[in-house]
Amino acid sequence: MSRGRDDESHGRPPLRTDLTPIVDAVATADADAFVAVGDRFDDDLRYLTRFAGSDRAAALVIAATDDAAGRAVLCVAPSVRARAEREFVSGARDGNDGDGEFHDGVARELRTVQASEHAGERAAAVVVDLLDDTDRGGGEGGDRSVLVPASVPHDAAVYLERAGNALASTDAVATARSRKTDAEIDRLRRVQRAAAAGMARAETALAGSAVSDPTALDAPDEGRRPALRWEGGPLTTERLRREVNAALGAHGVTDAENSVVTAGSALADRRLPGDEAIRAGETVVVSVSPRGPDGYYGDLTRTFVVDGDGGWERRAYVAVESAREAAIAEIEPDVPGKTVRGEASAELAAYGFDPNADAGGPAFGRGTGRGVGVSRRESPALSGAGTLRSGAVVTVGAEVSDPGAGAVRLTDLVVVTDEGCEVLATYPFGVVPESRG
Amino acid sequence: MSRGRDDESHGRPPLRTDLTPIVDAVATADADAFVAVGDRFDDDLRYLTRFAGSDRAAALVIAATDDAAGRAVLCVAPSVRARAEREFVSGARDGNDGDGEFHDGVARELRTVQASEHAGERAAAVVVDLLDDTDRGGGEGGDRSVLVPASVPHDAAVYLERAGNALASTDAVATARSRKTDAEIDRLRRVQRAAAAGMARAETALAGSAVSDPTALDAPDEGRRPALRWEGGPLTTERLRREVNAALGAHGVTDAENSVVTAGSALADRRLPGDEAIRAGETVVVSVSPRGPDGYYGDLTRTFVVDGDGGWERRAYVAVESAREAAIAEIEPDVPGKTVRGEASAELAAYGFDPNADAGGPAFGRGTGRGVGVSRRESPALSGAGTLRSGAVVTVGAEVSDPGAGAVRLTDLVVVTDEGCEVLATYPFGVVPESRG
Repeated sequence: MSRGRDDESHGRPPLRTDLTPIVDAVATADADAFVAVGDRFDDDLRYLTRFAGSDRAAALVIAATDDAAGRAVLCVAPSVRARAEREFVSGARDGNDGDGEFHDGVARELRTVQASEHAGERAAAVVVDLLDDTDRGGGEGGDRSVLVPASVPHDAAVYLERAGNALASTDAVATARSRKTDAEIDRLRRVQRAAAAGMARAETALAGSAVSDPTALDAPDEGRRPALRWEGGPLTTERLRREVNAALGAHGVTDAENSVVTAGSALADRRLPGDEAIRAGETVVVSVSPRGPDGYYGDLTRTFVVDGDGGWERRAYVAVESAREAAIAEIEPDVPGKTVRGEASAELAAYGFDPNADAGGPAFGRGTGRGVGVSRRESPALSGAGTLRSGAVVTVGAEVSDPGAGAVRLTDLVVVTDEGCEVLATYPFGVVPESRG
Repeated sequence: MSRGRDDESHGRPPLRTDLTPIVDAVATADADAFVAVGDRFDDDLRYLTRFAGSDRAAALVIAATDDAAGRAVLCVAPSVRARAEREFVSGARDGNDGDGEFHDGVARELRTVQASEHAGERAAAVVVDLLDDTDRGGGEGGDRSVLVPASVPHDAAVYLERAGNALASTDAVATARSRKTDAEIDRLRRVQRAAAAGMARAETALAGSAVSDPTALDAPDEGRRPALRWEGGPLTTERLRREVNAALGAHGVTDAENSVVTAGSALADRRLPGDEAIRAGETVVVSVSPRGPDGYYGDLTRTFVVDGDGGWERRAYVAVESAREAAIAEIEPDVPGKTVRGEASAELAAYGFDPNADAGGPAFGRGTGRGVGVSRRESPALSGAGTLRSGAVVTVGAEVSDPGAGAVRLTDLVVVTDEGCEVLATYPFGVVPESRG
């Protein structure tokens, strides 16, 4: 059997779930159980189960029990039961074959949800089963107390309430997710390496592009610089985006609809789909945030200029790179996120860029300074009041833009360590694209 | 400006939303408004707004009004306002520049949700605004009646209820989604063409692969047939999957984590990630369900065997192809979905394959016989009691598997027409792979 390559996770030991924080939250709240309901797009469920999910909703019930640390029951569609068994049950056991003890003492088991049944209804029945087994909360018709994530589907919540459960929301899952284990950091580093491969494809194409002949049919519009050509055709933002996504696919990750290529000063609208000519001298911002096979996201942004005049874009690049370094230098445990952002903004200001300029948007803007994990945006947020903790993985970077001149944006992923932080899967800097093929 | 290629939608007229069915549902239920809340993974919102969404939740409020057909307000994060304006507001106007009348008479407008605000809280405020403007339901503190999709996030539902709204769930969105417009069918055909390009890449690699030298180091396990090699290395399921995904990316669609390649009889566990050698004589099932730039999914499955012995896999292929044809021949408006599935099963049985065999799972199994649109699985379901309607787009196909022999699965997308059905973006059949480069 041939195993996967270095840049993704097939053949690695399965990622383990640790349900202790959820069991603890149930105990702390003096509740009876925790319930989550969702389909494959529910990242809390993916994190808690390592089950990649199906299009039909699944339900997870976790109860504290007297005889063990707890019991966890995942209810899935019959068609995906074998996969859920491997991902949720075997993956949490000790031993190479997944047949040892559950490493956190929480016993996992699987049940099924039929197509005719609502996952919330199923969860309500499982709550009764588990609590009847444990002498907890189990009076006839007596109200039980169940913790749920705040965004649990309303119909599931109604099923649970009608079955006699009082619901209270918990942020225990978000809190657990915000601090990554070494195994999770390994997965984040792998997907970030794949992101770098996508970026390398874009940079190499830009490095190999040529300024079109101004006398040719696709000559520049009046007063604009000529468009770039690459491998026999115009190099447009959409063509470059497809190159990036092909490289991501070849490296075992999905683009997750997050790859964005913009040219010029269009940073503010950067997720607008479009297919624009890329012109000589224009800033080209390439942003990727692929998702790896274990569900973890990467995040990487670079900016390039082909045949630039060394003016605005060079100054902007130096300022943004310095701001990024200033932010990185601040990151360590117990530092407020706002301090990190403040240092980056101050550095931009020192280079003469107004971090609060309306035209360009925030200097330490969207997509930077947030946690990344099984969601592209999760806790912690550097904009919030909280402080950084060791094990947090956040985007770090900065951007400036000017309606007339262009936009420069650089972001990377870092993990907060006891000593400071470490950039996950470094990618080179430089506004002039180089061939990285 | 260079426009996109034929296989995706950039440069096409924007897809329009028709909010009439929602306004009608509000009127029919004698309700005051409809509210949906969700992030970029909420397909109802994507359908109703054509807004591709952000990681932060958005809210849509639709109210019937006295002066017009209705008013629709979309609340989004400030950072994506420009994109939402283009996708939700301009895209629904007549005229090339998106500055004409709203074609369904429902006035669209945008508002923002700040990061400190919950989208459900924002929606509750907008409901009050819209109803105060219209003399409907607007008594001081009087209970208003609001329709919501059943799976609206629970915290959003609680905000709405606390603001004095009585909630009732509606399936108006699912019903509207189940019948596609010509423009939607065009988008489905385009993404299915991209799916075919991904399939062609897989088939071409299989056609170009060679049986490894049994005396070489990667010689077959005892008693098993030799593994395939392609372009200098072993051809594994993961390597083939990456080829497919690279081709999908190059054709402007995302693999959406739906590409699955399995070898042998592993159909039952086909979504288990893994990297297995592909061996001569083994059935290789390639299944893709990419998502196009407008959010519509494709769905295509083919099965190949390299260097087969012409035994089980040939008989199985003929049976599955016949079952597929029998299903297609049944499809027309007003036919019960169960009849379609029944015909396919009967055909498999006629070839000696037991459609109810435990080992192989259902003959007309998972992933076949369901609606496809902005969700990979949506209404209608051929397994349900309902009948087909013109404009429905469903997967059609069949499968058989045998633990010792392998698995054969073929699926396509069809649109139900007044006369029968039409296969969207045909892909050739044949168990022996051919080069389609």
